[in-house]
Amino acid sequence: MKTTAVIMAGGRGERFWPKSRNSRPKQFLSLTKDGETMIQKTVKRLLPLVEAEDIFIVTNSAYIGLVNEQLPDIPKENILAEPCARNTAPCIAFAAAVIGRKYDDAVMLVLPSDHLIGYEELYTSTLKKAVKLSLEGKNLVTIGITPDYPETGYGYINFGSETAADMPDAYKVERFVEKPDLPTAKEYLASGKYLWNSGMFVWKVSSIMENLRTFMPEIYDGALRIGEAFGTESFNEVLVREFTAFKGESIDFGIMEKADDIYTIPGSFGWDDVGNWLAVERINEVDDSNNYIEGDVISIGSERTTICGGKRLIAAVGVEDIIIVDTDDALLICSKNSTQDVKKVIAQLNDQGRTGLV
Amino acid sequence: MKTTAVIMAGGRGERFWPKSRNSRPKQFLSLTKDGETMIQKTVKRLLPLVEAEDIFIVTNSAYIGLVNEQLPDIPKENILAEPCARNTAPCIAFAAAVIGRKYDDAVMLVLPSDHLIGYEELYTSTLKKAVKLSLEGKNLVTIGITPDYPETGYGYINFGSETAADMPDAYKVERFVEKPDLPTAKEYLASGKYLWNSGMFVWKVSSIMENLRTFMPEIYDGALRIGEAFGTESFNEVLVREFTAFKGESIDFGIMEKADDIYTIPGSFGWDDVGNWLAVERINEVDDSNNYIEGDVISIGSERTTICGGKRLIAAVGVEDIIIVDTDDALLICSKNSTQDVKKVIAQLNDQGRTGLV
Repeated sequence: MKTTAVIMAGGRGERFWPKSRNSRPKQFLSLTKDGETMIQKTVKRLLPLVEAEDIFIVTNSAYIGLVNEQLPDIPKENILAEPCARNTAPCIAFAAAVIGRKYDDAVMLVLPSDHLIGYEELYTSTLKKAVKLSLEGKNLVTIGITPDYPETGYGYINFGSETAADMPDAYKVERFVEKPDLPTAKEYLASGKYLWNSGMFVWKVSSIMENLRTFMPEIYDGALRIGEAFGTESFNEVLVREFTAFKGESIDFGIMEKADDIYTIPGSFGWDDVGNWLAVERINEVDDSNNYIEGDVISIGSERTTICGGKRLIAAVGVEDIIIVDTDDALLICSKNSTQDVKKVIAQLNDQGRTGLV
Repeated sequence: MKTTAVIMAGGRGERFWPKSRNSRPKQFLSLTKDGETMIQKTVKRLLPLVEAEDIFIVTNSAYIGLVNEQLPDIPKENILAEPCARNTAPCIAFAAAVIGRKYDDAVMLVLPSDHLIGYEELYTSTLKKAVKLSLEGKNLVTIGITPDYPETGYGYINFGSETAADMPDAYKVERFVEKPDLPTAKEYLASGKYLWNSGMFVWKVSSIMENLRTFMPEIYDGALRIGEAFGTESFNEVLVREFTAFKGESIDFGIMEKADDIYTIPGSFGWDDVGNWLAVERINEVDDSNNYIEGDVISIGSERTTICGGKRLIAAVGVEDIIIVDTDDALLICSKNSTQDVKKVIAQLNDQGRTGLV
């Protein structure tokens, strides 16, 4: 059975403004000095497992040009354009239906497009185990991330002591839980029985379709009709009609929290969700003063500061713990304690109708 | 006897980089929201005392264009171009010789071009008293600033209890002292007998020439030759020859620290030397979060921050106590504790040969 991959690339990444814009979200940016974009890295690290012709990109129709430009080796027919944003369940159903139409059945790796992996060989071997579990008939498999602090911004996966018969590090999932408060997150961490939900899933097309039929029948029916139309003249018309009618829902809430026979494999491969500007100093090398500096910069006594320069000279004098991002038309200067508030800038710009800057 | 004014406008103001450049020093910048430049304000506040045709500007020859542009009411022949920088004594001698040539004798107000005055009526009345003292025959008069904290960056004027006969707030100067260390500055402040040396002087042309003759005879001789050539075809040639031969020396060290019969009038007219970027929040109104904001700026939770925007949007998110100055080709982000280090940026740029940015 073929192993395919579905890369979900419809997100906005508002927290990387002003580099990320509506017209170029985070997955299409490079946040590392090598110049590779997040989605290019995502595809590259999959190639030991999946052939390029079996990698599918689901993205907003506005980003088709960016995907073609950044991923020239991915066949054009594998780039699936969502007519609108409907969260992960419709996205995955759409991809499953198309892959089902092409290959009847196949293993599907479902992966975000905007995360980074530090240890790619560990990542590959973990995904291989997940593929094996799927092929053995496990309903749904998810990669959990071994937590190293009580993060309150992620959902968690609770696992028990039961493992897969021939795989001692593949645990049967007890339940998926939503983002906890801090005391709860601390309990999760202390228990040793919780993993972060990374949004990486592995299953057969036939399995996920069966789960959609059971838990999300409207999406199942619509996806079937989209799959039937794939490759025909009426495809776009059917896609727009069916997809826009879907209720937006996450796969976690729609299926993972309800289904049985789910297994999780703990991953310790240096996963980073690159959630906001604080990530840049984590995923790049810093200088002796713990600054990350990119571009034409003079630093005089600055410490623990991230500077992503643009075309102009930036002089940073005696500043500490701030993030500076320069672009042609907008400049961000942000305290490291306030990276979540970058969204508020976008909200103000939208309120002011300054959509060209968003 | 005419009252004339000499505005010294040859300085560089490196601490206002990147707004100030070699090609446009601080006195030719506006640092207030009214858009008036420092030198325009300096001239404007003199007009109740001195006619425009009796105001002389001494500046570097490179800035003649800026002076003409910003001060169209000052006669072109009153704009005196120094061929090179030689500190204040040669500058003042040059102006005194020219004014002596024009008017035989006159009162000369000698004033910096890049300070601000909060209470202009008090300023005018203080200068009027100084003019009166000069006319009465006092050798040299200086305006001292009543200190309100133990500043270590200024020289001080020590005065005794002797006052001018008909002017109880004009004190005989005991001595001029150089910049003190902090304990000394604290003693000065506590004694009530010290004023800041603001660099504002009032004297007759005949008095200062006599002092130059006594204490700086080479400059006196050269200045006489410059004065004799003024208005003739050989003026430029004589000026360049004589002026470049002058030793650079301050009027404070060259004369004020040595001469007798000096009087000082304490000024409490809201003087600000606008010494570095910290001045901007002092000399402008700040918002409820104590930010000074100019330009296209979105502030989310920022406090005590100065932002001088350029053409682009600046988003300041959660930052505190920093200074942000944006220009077309260079951006400064500086901690309020490090404003003196802006000079180090200029030094680095000079070392790198990037003179276009300096």
